[in-house]
Amino acid sequence: MEETIQMRPIGYVRSPHKELKGTPIQGVFASEIEASVELDQKYVDGLKDLDGFSHAILIYYFHKSDSERLIGKPYLEDREHGIFAIRSPHRPNHIGFSVVRIKGIAGNRLHFSEVDILDGTPILDIKPYVRHFDSRENAIGGWIEKHFENGQQPRGVLVK
Amino acid sequence: MEETIQMRPIGYVRSPHKELKGTPIQGVFASEIEASVELDQKYVDGLKDLDGFSHAILIYYFHKSDSERLIGKPYLEDREHGIFAIRSPHRPNHIGFSVVRIKGIAGNRLHFSEVDILDGTPILDIKPYVRHFDSRENAIGGWIEKHFENGQQPRGVLVK
Repeated sequence: MEETIQMRPIGYVRSPHKELKGTPIQGVFASEIEASVELDQKYVDGLKDLDGFSHAILIYYFHKSDSERLIGKPYLEDREHGIFAIRSPHRPNHIGFSVVRIKGIAGNRLHFSEVDILDGTPILDIKPYVRHFDSRENAIGGWIEKHFENGQQPRGVLVK
Repeated sequence: MEETIQMRPIGYVRSPHKELKGTPIQGVFASEIEASVELDQKYVDGLKDLDGFSHAILIYYFHKSDSERLIGKPYLEDREHGIFAIRSPHRPNHIGFSVVRIKGIAGNRLHFSEVDILDGTPILDIKPYVRHFDSRENAIGGWIEKHFENGQQPRGVLVK
């Protein structure tokens, strides 16, 4: 069975990250950088009350990836893992996921920081981040834990 | 511009939740319930090393929703909010997001608990949950915070 699901961008990211090189591998490593979602005008009513939340979940389309791999190397290390155990864009359906900090909403613009998203990225959904639903402080992180040992920041948090 | 993005399910959820009624509104309210993702065989190699993680992010398609609303009432209260400030399935692109607890991986099956997903739901992506990237313990939850005051569980955590 080859069911197909059609999606349309609800808006696009306007970000200072114009190319992959130099973009943080995750938004938590770029708390000072700001960007915005420019939402299609027809969806503006959907933003009501999102400004009461400190963080949002952005779900988007990795539009710069044109390959799909089942095994890949993450930015943090030179070892291979399954695509569902890493956050690489070169994945089936090319879906991206980021938690961002909401800075403000004005008209059709959602301004945010903690940005790891390229300029021009099509946005598929915006959800409120709810720590009671989405935080797992005791989660164990497989191959990635060693890069955060002793509370350190990993080296190489920008794409080379 | 009406750009279209095509996606295909990478697998389907096999869950004891056969209908919306009685399904938990979020997986954290159903820690004892187990389900699995039955992954298309061609993607099995992508699961390598995911079993080192305690939690996974599932991104899926709300296949039972046939409406798209910009304003809606969440399960937790009788007040309206913008669709991007609630987690309702009746949203543009009908994308669902859950953090689940990994119980084990066997062949093409990813077994998990903390299940708020209906049986038969098409899965679009699986990502490792990384607390260093995805947890925001201090996040503020807008209209939802009052339902968790004093550390209480909200009433009405199952769909009526």
